[in-house]
Amino acid sequence: MILERHHALLTDLYQLTMMGGYHRHEQFRERRAAFELFFRRVPFGGGYCIAAGLADVVTYIRSLSFGADELGYLERLGLFGREFLDFLKTFRFAGDLWAVPEGTVVFAHEPLLRVEARLPEAQLVETALLNILNFQTLIATKAARICDAAGGAPVLEFGLRRAQGVDGSLSASRAACIGGCVGTSNVLAGMLYGLAPRGTQAHAWIMAFGDELAAFRAYADTYPDACLLLVDTYDTLRTGVPNAITAAKELEARGHCFLGIRLDSGDLAYLSREARRMLDEAGLEHAKIVASNDLDEYAIAELRKNGARVDMWGVGTNLVTARDCPALGGVYKLVAIAAEDGSWIPRIKLSSNGEKTTNPGVKQILRFTDSAGTLLGDVLADASEALPERGSPVLSSHLLDARERRSIAGWDRVEALLVPVFSGGELVGDQPELPAIRLRAQQQRDRLPSGTRRLTEPDPIWVGLSSAVLETKIALTRAAANRE
Amino acid sequence: MILERHHALLTDLYQLTMMGGYHRHEQFRERRAAFELFFRRVPFGGGYCIAAGLADVVTYIRSLSFGADELGYLERLGLFGREFLDFLKTFRFAGDLWAVPEGTVVFAHEPLLRVEARLPEAQLVETALLNILNFQTLIATKAARICDAAGGAPVLEFGLRRAQGVDGSLSASRAACIGGCVGTSNVLAGMLYGLAPRGTQAHAWIMAFGDELAAFRAYADTYPDACLLLVDTYDTLRTGVPNAITAAKELEARGHCFLGIRLDSGDLAYLSREARRMLDEAGLEHAKIVASNDLDEYAIAELRKNGARVDMWGVGTNLVTARDCPALGGVYKLVAIAAEDGSWIPRIKLSSNGEKTTNPGVKQILRFTDSAGTLLGDVLADASEALPERGSPVLSSHLLDARERRSIAGWDRVEALLVPVFSGGELVGDQPELPAIRLRAQQQRDRLPSGTRRLTEPDPIWVGLSSAVLETKIALTRAAANRE
Repeated sequence: MILERHHALLTDLYQLTMMGGYHRHEQFRERRAAFELFFRRVPFGGGYCIAAGLADVVTYIRSLSFGADELGYLERLGLFGREFLDFLKTFRFAGDLWAVPEGTVVFAHEPLLRVEARLPEAQLVETALLNILNFQTLIATKAARICDAAGGAPVLEFGLRRAQGVDGSLSASRAACIGGCVGTSNVLAGMLYGLAPRGTQAHAWIMAFGDELAAFRAYADTYPDACLLLVDTYDTLRTGVPNAITAAKELEARGHCFLGIRLDSGDLAYLSREARRMLDEAGLEHAKIVASNDLDEYAIAELRKNGARVDMWGVGTNLVTARDCPALGGVYKLVAIAAEDGSWIPRIKLSSNGEKTTNPGVKQILRFTDSAGTLLGDVLADASEALPERGSPVLSSHLLDARERRSIAGWDRVEALLVPVFSGGELVGDQPELPAIRLRAQQQRDRLPSGTRRLTEPDPIWVGLSSAVLETKIALTRAAANRE
Repeated sequence: MILERHHALLTDLYQLTMMGGYHRHEQFRERRAAFELFFRRVPFGGGYCIAAGLADVVTYIRSLSFGADELGYLERLGLFGREFLDFLKTFRFAGDLWAVPEGTVVFAHEPLLRVEARLPEAQLVETALLNILNFQTLIATKAARICDAAGGAPVLEFGLRRAQGVDGSLSASRAACIGGCVGTSNVLAGMLYGLAPRGTQAHAWIMAFGDELAAFRAYADTYPDACLLLVDTYDTLRTGVPNAITAAKELEARGHCFLGIRLDSGDLAYLSREARRMLDEAGLEHAKIVASNDLDEYAIAELRKNGARVDMWGVGTNLVTARDCPALGGVYKLVAIAAEDGSWIPRIKLSSNGEKTTNPGVKQILRFTDSAGTLLGDVLADASEALPERGSPVLSSHLLDARERRSIAGWDRVEALLVPVFSGGELVGDQPELPAIRLRAQQQRDRLPSGTRRLTEPDPIWVGLSSAVLETKIALTRAAANRE
């Protein structure tokens, strides 16, 4: 979700001070630069990420302008001169933006997005782009892991009450859907994104009635065709399931179909097996069992291993906050700056920590797949490099250790993942709907080797640097060493 | 931050289905109920929380209504009857709401908020109230811990780029300020909440110039009276600090005051000591050193222990996502339901896990302090109980183990923490401004014994149950056992 107002101020102050500085220094005011957005580690110890958030980036970029309120506020800060404030008054993003489509599987150090624009405008958008893509990619990835653990059983997102603020829930609901969830408890997310809202009753419903069976009958009476009953308010197997069966039989005798029960506490493996047996013995083989209560991918995998008979999983806090790794560390780095003639001069940020040294130059991600569609490996190439000829072995170097090289052979198809989204400030290309994005994510995951989808210690996918990028990196590193 | 539209749908679907069910069953439609919102554990292994978020709760409750868009959406879901949808059309919250003021120190099992209202409306608001109070209380608490660790040095919040969505940043900026932060990088949070926006330049500024000294001079030229320089782009001590000193001396020769430098990588204890020495030797004793880079309360405490010479701390991701515990597990539980005559019938939710058994009845938090203002202990009493007489020993029982009792003696003052916020749907009482809330939080923390503010294994503050609440709890537990 994007703000409805004041978008332009959704940024770090230093973006505006730098923007003001570039504006003041003529050699930079119109100077084009290229920035790439990437993360350095796949979160959760996993093997892949699902890119998400681009639709909100598009909304943000399109509506980016400074209104009177924002300009008045900036003026009152006393930092900025009149000329710069006047420049902001008519400011619009007029650059180019490339991105991998939402739902694409991505790996560490791959640019999810590239901005080519005048330095001031490329700088301004950094913070919002990071905020949007970091969070939605994180949650789509977490959701994909949870859905993988559920092994095809539907997963619902129930996180609104513990989410990090209003948008921590709305954006999470959307991203969770991209990652594979089939519905959400969040009604507003349902309306805004066309997701399926789900939910029946809480413990308070049963407590208000006091009598559990009376509460179940009242619910069945109100929603005869959407009746799913929460059975753990008092004692799941001694009262909850028997009372639910009584209410269900009465409901079915009136010609309706009972949907099932929800378990929300206790040993879900044991309780679901027993509840399944009791439902089956009552002739309610069609009734489903929904389980919730502090679940995540590990808990679901463990419960399934222990024979849980659960037809649908509800996951809340651990999904929408990505509890075990609540931030994706995406960064947005200058990779090139334009020469007088418009050609790109690659830039590098060095670090004693090799992982933090950037890969210089304007790049493209080349993805190689075999004839079955399975992903063989990716190569970060210079955007100006020609695509390799079909089937020819493609040599690339390890991202962090240039001595390790690998050849991708036997590939059938190469795809350039970064596609144009804005050109000269104009939106270009498709804006896929959420179901299409969700399907893309599913298809992309299905093309990963199964070992890469393992929850822990997955087999990594090879991501290499092309010879051209490596040569630039080595040359810039040497030049920096010589300067010192 | 609250949404500007569609507030009423910011809820779990089951709140609406339950609401529809209560509406259909006449005995519940107008039936009043009392719900209390509390958390069961202080996060981060700490000794206290800082309540935050009430201002957004007020905004939410005041603007709660179903517009045509929302009603149309609910109708299309096919779940709700016409009569209920018509009821929603004119729905407004008409109940009572009590809460502890923002900035109040609170502990586990204490109600931060109580709603007394007709069952359907009390149920509807649950999810949004939890979303708002859970997150802002979490972040205010995290910020207080970080400020405690900084020992009085100012702390800035820098988290927008890694926050969980747009509101994950805005609400976090506000809550971080309540917890003690003095500024934020987030310009929009600055405008919306009157916070001080802070920031100068990123590595990209230096990389764009290529030459570090040229970049520093250009920044000093643009912002001569707000010049703080980032010194770690290439080599902090060999080039960064010396170049900053050169630019600073030139700036000061022109009659301006150099603000200082920022360190953003490496061993911040060592680098800050060396940078301090170099600045001092250059006659820049007044220049400040700001440190950032993946900080939290533990890192700051460790750096200070190792002699870091840091004047100001910038904390981002770990603060705004509360990385080591990204969700406060607040819950909202039915504690009483009205009898025919309007008196409260207490309700309990039992659990085999004693910590999850609720404390029944409509309650108040009584806080006892000594003549120096130091907090001696809290007692959860029935809201109808009279305040104890000044100085008389107050006996109460352990929240989870009734056999453990304690007497609070020698107290000077007792305060009832829950105060009316809405009465019959009308806003009552003060709406303090953010600086006043921040001051309250500071004063409240200063009244805690120092052992309670320790980052790890803090001394707990006693929170007991009054005899009346305990008796009700025992009676309801026995009655439930007898029913089975």
